[in-house]
Amino acid sequence: MEKVAVLGGGSWATAIVKILSENKSQIHWWMRNSNDVQHLLNYKHNPRYLSQVSFDLHYVKPSTDIQAVLAAADWVILAVPAAFVRLALADLKEDAFKGKVVVSAIKGMIPEDNVLITEHMERKYHVPNSHQLVIAGPCHAEEVALEKQSYLTIGSHDMATAEKFCALLRNRYVKANPLDDLDGIEYCAVMKNIIAMACGIARGLNYGDNFQAVLVSNAMFEIERFLDAIMPIHRVLSGSAYLGDLLVTAYSQFSRNRTFGNMIGRGYTVKSAQVEMNMVAEGYYAVQSIFELNKHFKVEMPITNAVYHILYERIAPTMEFEILKDKLK
Amino acid sequence: MEKVAVLGGGSWATAIVKILSENKSQIHWWMRNSNDVQHLLNYKHNPRYLSQVSFDLHYVKPSTDIQAVLAAADWVILAVPAAFVRLALADLKEDAFKGKVVVSAIKGMIPEDNVLITEHMERKYHVPNSHQLVIAGPCHAEEVALEKQSYLTIGSHDMATAEKFCALLRNRYVKANPLDDLDGIEYCAVMKNIIAMACGIARGLNYGDNFQAVLVSNAMFEIERFLDAIMPIHRVLSGSAYLGDLLVTAYSQFSRNRTFGNMIGRGYTVKSAQVEMNMVAEGYYAVQSIFELNKHFKVEMPITNAVYHILYERIAPTMEFEILKDKLK
Repeated sequence: MEKVAVLGGGSWATAIVKILSENKSQIHWWMRNSNDVQHLLNYKHNPRYLSQVSFDLHYVKPSTDIQAVLAAADWVILAVPAAFVRLALADLKEDAFKGKVVVSAIKGMIPEDNVLITEHMERKYHVPNSHQLVIAGPCHAEEVALEKQSYLTIGSHDMATAEKFCALLRNRYVKANPLDDLDGIEYCAVMKNIIAMACGIARGLNYGDNFQAVLVSNAMFEIERFLDAIMPIHRVLSGSAYLGDLLVTAYSQFSRNRTFGNMIGRGYTVKSAQVEMNMVAEGYYAVQSIFELNKHFKVEMPITNAVYHILYERIAPTMEFEILKDKLK
Repeated sequence: MEKVAVLGGGSWATAIVKILSENKSQIHWWMRNSNDVQHLLNYKHNPRYLSQVSFDLHYVKPSTDIQAVLAAADWVILAVPAAFVRLALADLKEDAFKGKVVVSAIKGMIPEDNVLITEHMERKYHVPNSHQLVIAGPCHAEEVALEKQSYLTIGSHDMATAEKFCALLRNRYVKANPLDDLDGIEYCAVMKNIIAMACGIARGLNYGDNFQAVLVSNAMFEIERFLDAIMPIHRVLSGSAYLGDLLVTAYSQFSRNRTFGNMIGRGYTVKSAQVEMNMVAEGYYAVQSIFELNKHFKVEMPITNAVYHILYERIAPTMEFEILKDKLK
């Protein structure tokens, strides 16, 4: 029985616990909130997210003790919002991840220093590249809960480890494939949330399907230019882990980044949209990180810049999109 | 004043007449149905499609006389369903298009001999490549009627002519760009309808957003493989004319190919879906043409094959998609 720690109690963490525990891995599930842990122990479901999913407590051990959870596992899945990674791991020693494979299921960057999660884990906890994986979609947690056919891509520098992890995930409704592009997948997962916000803003401003299709096409070039600047390897961006992940986020009703953008487009302030949604839209932080990073690379990124200007410099969405629409083709 | 013939009375033809006539081109608009012509002359709108659009009859001259319409124009826009091209042009002589620029706004192939519209016009009417253009989306006619921001790509072998035509289209809500890939754009426009049907079938079978994102990603590879086999030039398929056109068709509520697929997925027969929709789903014919063509090229096309098997060999959609889902990644 593989021993897996899952850190985080959100919807994506919950979906991952469902997949792994049904495959009879032993899950040590850390969540911050002791009421939620107690609820899980009493009623076998997460009270906050995907609450229709019932867990077999023989395989799923919820706990608020992050040290104990980590100590019991060989695989550690990080599934807290990027902005809370430092806080969540604050009590851990530098060697807490030693010998373990760390899997990032986070689609964001550490906001304080604009680094990827895998970079952060390497710098702060010395987790080597060979022991890091990333999980990429296209995969809404809500559809995993409904057991709809889904596909995951596991990014890695070590294909054997990635393949081993894929085997833990595969089941009747999940297919998993390894891919040798750890960082490209991770950056793309970050950037897709920015694009999804742009799609939401466009919808909020009453742009239509024609415009969104052009926005997403142009976004593919923007992502490609950025990845080529930051880490130029050959990659085919039409793949599920890149284009697919972007599509599911940009077009789906389940996308919180899109919903957040939509509210901004309709005139909500950032604060009121966040309060209303009661969820973190990762793209809100991502756009700042990418914008800051790009000060060094100076890649042409009209969509990212437009979203940044709207969210952080309070430029009116109408005006910003009037400018943006002339840059697209 | 540029003199333009528009052949066809459907929604896309109507949208094109709106764009061109607002830019003060003289439009000679051929439609088969004399009642529709009379209605247009009396009430200034097309009774069947986009009927909220009002036309200025100073610029728009509807007629049932195709010879007169052609004789009056320097540009000829073909906008009838692909399956009716031969019938619509049946009374014309071989030299009817001599000296004119022929613009295909048709997203389909001649079903009888599986050739593109531009190929047909060259073979039958000797229209040289340099005098042919294709209009590609992403552009739903319905959104043009609503004056939503849209982008058109004009495919051509002659960029000067393409640019000239772009100038006739550009306005407050339409941007137009020339692109040097006449055939690639035309094939992609045909294939996107097949993919949209596949997306509709998937939805009808209750597959979700995760699956559709993977389906579209895989479709991009399928289109690329086919185009590379049939006419290998360098093209970037993330562009609006390729990916954008696919997205607007695969994801939009306005897409009749998607709707048709959805009905097939839910168990309608081909006949009953066609009767119910009262519109031709171009993809229905396209999939047969591409399937037949591909017998020579033998490109791996799992999505196209699945749609063909369902529509033409009466394989149950459930079963066909069970097989297809294992081929995607």
